[in-house]
Amino acid sequence: MTHNWCKIIRCRLGIKITCGVSKRSMLGLLILLVLSFWLSVSYAQEPKSSDETDGCLSCHASVTPGIVADWQNSFHAKQSPAEAVKKEKLMRRVSADSIPEYLAMTTVGCAECHTLNQEKHNDTFAHNGFQVHTVVTPEDCATCHPIEKTQYEKNIMSYAHIILTNNPVYHSLITSINGIQDFDGTKTSLEDPDELTNFESCLYCHGTEVMVQGMLTRETALGEMEFPILSGWPNQGVGRLNPDGSMGSCAACHTRHQFSIQMARKPYTCSECHKGPDVPAYKVYQVSKHGNIFFSVGKNWEFESVPWVVGRDFTAPTCAACHVSLIVTPEDDITAQRTHQMNDRLWWRILGVIYAHPHPKSPNTAIIQNKAGLPLPTELSGEPVSEYLIDEDEMLRRKETMKTVCLSCHSTQWVDNQFARFENTIKTTNEMTLTATKILSTAWDKGAAQGLPQGADLFDEAIEKKWVEQWLFFANSTRYASAMAGADYGVFANGRWYMSKNIQEMVDWLQFKLKDKDKRE
Amino acid sequence: MTHNWCKIIRCRLGIKITCGVSKRSMLGLLILLVLSFWLSVSYAQEPKSSDETDGCLSCHASVTPGIVADWQNSFHAKQSPAEAVKKEKLMRRVSADSIPEYLAMTTVGCAECHTLNQEKHNDTFAHNGFQVHTVVTPEDCATCHPIEKTQYEKNIMSYAHIILTNNPVYHSLITSINGIQDFDGTKTSLEDPDELTNFESCLYCHGTEVMVQGMLTRETALGEMEFPILSGWPNQGVGRLNPDGSMGSCAACHTRHQFSIQMARKPYTCSECHKGPDVPAYKVYQVSKHGNIFFSVGKNWEFESVPWVVGRDFTAPTCAACHVSLIVTPEDDITAQRTHQMNDRLWWRILGVIYAHPHPKSPNTAIIQNKAGLPLPTELSGEPVSEYLIDEDEMLRRKETMKTVCLSCHSTQWVDNQFARFENTIKTTNEMTLTATKILSTAWDKGAAQGLPQGADLFDEAIEKKWVEQWLFFANSTRYASAMAGADYGVFANGRWYMSKNIQEMVDWLQFKLKDKDKRE
Amino acid sequence: MTHNWCKIIRCRLGIKITCGVSKRSMLGLLILLVLSFWLSVSYAQEPKSSDETDGCLSCHASVTPGIVADWQNSFHAKQSPAEAVKKEKLMRRVSADSIPEYLAMTTVGCAECHTLNQEKHNDTFAHNGFQVHTVVTPEDCATCHPIEKTQYEKNIMSYAHIILTNNPVYHSLITSINGIQDFDGTKTSLEDPDELTNFESCLYCHGTEVMVQGMLTRETALGEMEFPILSGWPNQGVGRLNPDGSMGSCAACHTRHQFSIQMARKPYTCSECHKGPDVPAYKVYQVSKHGNIFFSVGKNWEFESVPWVVGRDFTAPTCAACHVSLIVTPEDDITAQRTHQMNDRLWWRILGVIYAHPHPKSPNTAIIQNKAGLPLPTELSGEPVSEYLIDEDEMLRRKETMKTVCLSCHSTQWVDNQFARFENTIKTTNEMTLTATKILSTAWDKGAAQGLPQGADLFDEAIEKKWVEQWLFFANSTRYASAMAGADYGVFANGRWYMSKNIQEMVDWLQFKLKDKDKRE
Repeated sequence: MTHNWCKIIRCRLGIKITCGVSKRSMLGLLILLVLSFWLSVSYAQEPKSSDETDGCLSCHASVTPGIVADWQNSFHAKQSPAEAVKKEKLMRRVSADSIPEYLAMTTVGCAECHTLNQEKHNDTFAHNGFQVHTVVTPEDCATCHPIEKTQYEKNIMSYAHIILTNNPVYHSLITSINGIQDFDGTKTSLEDPDELTNFESCLYCHGTEVMVQGMLTRETALGEMEFPILSGWPNQGVGRLNPDGSMGSCAACHTRHQFSIQMARKPYTCSECHKGPDVPAYKVYQVSKHGNIFFSVGKNWEFESVPWVVGRDFTAPTCAACHVSLIVTPEDDITAQRTHQMNDRLWWRILGVIYAHPHPKSPNTAIIQNKAGLPLPTELSGEPVSEYLIDEDEMLRRKETMKTVCLSCHSTQWVDNQFARFENTIKTTNEMTLTATKILSTAWDKGAAQGLPQGADLFDEAIEKKWVEQWLFFANSTRYASAMAGADYGVFANGRWYMSKNIQEMVDWLQFKLKDKDKRE
Repeated sequence: MTHNWCKIIRCRLGIKITCGVSKRSMLGLLILLVLSFWLSVSYAQEPKSSDETDGCLSCHASVTPGIVADWQNSFHAKQSPAEAVKKEKLMRRVSADSIPEYLAMTTVGCAECHTLNQEKHNDTFAHNGFQVHTVVTPEDCATCHPIEKTQYEKNIMSYAHIILTNNPVYHSLITSINGIQDFDGTKTSLEDPDELTNFESCLYCHGTEVMVQGMLTRETALGEMEFPILSGWPNQGVGRLNPDGSMGSCAACHTRHQFSIQMARKPYTCSECHKGPDVPAYKVYQVSKHGNIFFSVGKNWEFESVPWVVGRDFTAPTCAACHVSLIVTPEDDITAQRTHQMNDRLWWRILGVIYAHPHPKSPNTAIIQNKAGLPLPTELSGEPVSEYLIDEDEMLRRKETMKTVCLSCHSTQWVDNQFARFENTIKTTNEMTLTATKILSTAWDKGAAQGLPQGADLFDEAIEKKWVEQWLFFANSTRYASAMAGADYGVFANGRWYMSKNIQEMVDWLQFKLKDKDKRE
Repeated sequence: MTHNWCKIIRCRLGIKITCGVSKRSMLGLLILLVLSFWLSVSYAQEPKSSDETDGCLSCHASVTPGIVADWQNSFHAKQSPAEAVKKEKLMRRVSADSIPEYLAMTTVGCAECHTLNQEKHNDTFAHNGFQVHTVVTPEDCATCHPIEKTQYEKNIMSYAHIILTNNPVYHSLITSINGIQDFDGTKTSLEDPDELTNFESCLYCHGTEVMVQGMLTRETALGEMEFPILSGWPNQGVGRLNPDGSMGSCAACHTRHQFSIQMARKPYTCSECHKGPDVPAYKVYQVSKHGNIFFSVGKNWEFESVPWVVGRDFTAPTCAACHVSLIVTPEDDITAQRTHQMNDRLWWRILGVIYAHPHPKSPNTAIIQNKAGLPLPTELSGEPVSEYLIDEDEMLRRKETMKTVCLSCHSTQWVDNQFARFENTIKTTNEMTLTATKILSTAWDKGAAQGLPQGADLFDEAIEKKWVEQWLFFANSTRYASAMAGADYGVFANGRWYMSKNIQEMVDWLQFKLKDKDKRE
């Protein structure tokens, strides 16, 4: 019983109570309970959910209690768009100037999102008298949050699926990783991966294409029902191709069904996709001073307030603070505008590419072609394919935007020196990648491995995989460690130590192979 | 002084107070203090500790203050078994129908556990007028928690020590890892590891055999005392062999001396043994959506309530939610029964084995023998040794039990598709292991390495160790990433990238070796 | 508005309030607000910041709001040294017997630290009427905390920069890692790393030398200003060489500008430098029982109290509890004295060295020379260079100091057996390193690699890098896992598995190389 009382009180009064087991505290709680009851009846009405949503909840509260509870804890369940749109500019969470009338006065519940834009949704189906769709998309969210959607479309993330599947180089990288290899006693063969494998690996983060493959009928607790068969589902990848033709998934960061700004602002969300050796942002953050402060004292920070006040709400940046959030000073001066085009504050592209290079102009990098005819933003020598990349002015502009955030806590010299180190590391990591590329090219040229000159796969042999690790893991990790000042990660964990060792191992391999070859010839 | 007052108030009233340093808050605290004092005297008595336990505490409160404080914070110190047994079925934490009379009315203190079943305990010794034993065992805990003990005996974990030491294949794996290697200028030799090494490595998690090796007399603060000499101690491994003949250690998860359900429900506990590349459950959880939710908002969840209410107490699963806990809906409908036979909701065995296969029928897998005479649940080709493994009906039953948990938040199609991906990954990872096995077999057959055909060690050479990594690390990690939807871990962190690269490196090695051999011949 | 009220109340009253969004709680908050206002006016004055500091704040509150907020949350902003020095001995945070009069009565603000010891600071410059310096040093902090500074000078960490740069062996290790390699089609070459690379990698933790390189004039919001140009800045490395001639940075652990004991006591701080495979203390802690307890229930511990009471303030150790903090029992008996000479409780040196050995006598290990003339504390055979190392009596003394901490929760036998395992692991890991060294020596002797006998670099070739991993990563990680009982890390994560595999790979390499060589000859 104690526990239930605790919850009620906590919920009503907003006071955090540790629900201990001691019965002695019961009487104290009783007093608070009476007080809170009086408060709750004496205060004005909150907005209500729509009748349609109430219809959904009547079953789903017991069918899927977890997500219903999540929604009940969300802003969507507590405020109407009409109220939300009236807030002062800095405090607004909705970016629409006006809200469609039929959505304005109730809270934002099941029906409001899952029946929006019915006609656009291939996945719309009849469900207990409603025309609902499973996959809520950025297009749907844009009804109230249009600016975020527009910005996100310029974010390279929104093209994450397309970039991977439309670029033949990346496509061949996927095959070399996810494909099934066999061995016939002498050599290996490689088969294309099946789509279920791709769904749960690369496309988990990059996004699947969700398509309706027909309908199926299923016996449910409420009798027989019909549902669309969705391929590529479930998925919340950042570049998901949706059944309404839109790209992306807001739920990738604003996890359903709390859609919480708190979660999006915490680094755990980013770590879902940015932790592995190919994008070790979270691991670098963990050993940075910023990460140390967040993990040590961040539990007392305010993660829900809009705008986000540096110094008052938080005292060290999370991922969102540097890359996304609207940041203001305690005097409400704007430090950084909210952006969902994350590269708005990024001038170098440091991950997933052979050489770091200025950010691409278009988020669709699959359109880039280098002089050698490969769909890559640099030549194999590292030279950037400038026509597709932002120029120095734009790089400077983005750098200055980021610098403003840093200056909230650091001196100009501090920041300038930090950035100088980063620029230097862009240069040295590219040099170390070039060295590895020279070794691989020699192997290709002398026939020790089969690659570009032979028109063969670039990624399927052991020496090629070592080359991939040089840039995809080690150079990249070193750059992240530099950018975010997480030194510990960039030396021995996955950085310079391995860059240096890998080159020596590639040379050793080449020497073994060539001597072997010499002798056979 | 402030701090002490704070603690008293917090303790009495159950209100969480942040004990700040500002003196301005002192007067406020004083008011609360008076209020709480009044509350504490006006409320009924709590159960008391036994006289025997008071005897223990009289010294140990100052000798080992840490564990005494832990116990004081525990349920054991706050409730008598007599009260505990009276609760409604769903809310009960003890599973015994009745409690021995002499234990019923006091709290569960030092003496209650450490003097139980004296006659069964080889480690019982005279200590200040009591017959106490150091090692409290599942048999002791079963006095109040018999169902948990019975279930746990069917859990493969309870045989973790036996499986490792009685299975010659695993025994030889341990030797190859923990043994001391020497080099004579030409080749290496391998010596058996000493037992202290095994205690702190494999057996730390798998459990040691704790045996009494004699008695020793030691000078203490209270004069000369005699204690049993325990080998294999300390240890809280899941398959510990205890001095009373029982197996396992409840303290492995219910950490002494809080024995807290909170700790057992948090993933940190599981991570003690399930984080390394051989069982990366925790690392996969960290990058899963479930983990993201837990780390972001789990600090507000209720981890002590029984039963555990999905949606109200927690909104995303921890390890315990899927694998152990009694889960109910907010309407108290049972979603999943509590089980300490963790494989009750597991249909595939995916870890620590060459090929994933249906779960074994008996928790003692050391009894299994394949056609080749090896104590393994599959042939070297991957074919399962079906007579020892659960059949499809039982697999389906376990899958359905797990599915019920998932359906608390997810649609049927969501869950079915997730499971389909997992089944597919079982298949593909087994195929990739088979390819590695073919390469190794070729090496053995052609004498490039010494293994099964030569009756030699399977694990001591470099190429064999690469083969072990293929299944023990990479295939296994890929399966975990699939099962728990932690994609980031299963691609580049320790999954498909390495499966694919490892095969190429094995083939390279084989070619170097064979050419080398050819030339010598 | 709700949020602002919440904060005011939380701040004044010290009661932790979860600032929910529900408007129903507003009235309740209003009542609390009135109460808190009354409390705040009726209570006595707090100490004030100095006029000089107020001058700093008048600009910096808006220029760098993040660090100003940090400082406002700190003890330094809430108490005057005069009050701090009056506390009872056990509760004191300042170790000075007396405080200079001009500093005693105000809080410790910007001006107090950044204008101290002006004459000693090369980096002192005129700034808005003050003579300030950027880099606050241990010498500055010693004004109030002299004992900590004196102890820290005996800490090997204070020499972390010097050890790395003055020891030619370590210097060459850095070059081999951070240097730029090139490939000419046949072999690689190695260039010295630039200093920006060293600043952000090794020296980030070890500390840079911060030097004034001149002055620069910059346009600021307040007009043109002049600042010193600092090389090696920013840096908070533990062995930083400061512009006042002192060594170290208190902010390495007591992160500016909260300088919080809470942060220094939490393991996240140590993890900034002690997480990589070369010093995996944090990773081992994470999978230890101690770590499990901290992560599961540590959020309720008291991290700010001085002294730190075992059992009451915390129930499992963090890094600081074992290695630094003043620990007392609930009866105020001293368990361990505070020490900033961290090796005060350490008898073996287990990290960053080829072989584990008794701790060095002097924190400046660059003075050590072995029989072979190398600046190493052991011979290449593992034999310790005893004259520079502490003797058995001192080892025993340190071990006993540590043991006292362990005994707060564990029995004597528990601790003795734990230590016996550790001693055994020192021995076995040294043996495995010796085996790897024998293989490398054979490679050197037979000309398969170029090293000591050839007067060549010890670290630049692939086989040498494998040897380095044997001791710097694998043996070392195994020792950490043993010392702190984090078994999971010491087997498969980065421990015995790799020690054993690495030796086999080294032998394979040697055989390939020698046969290759034979055939050429």
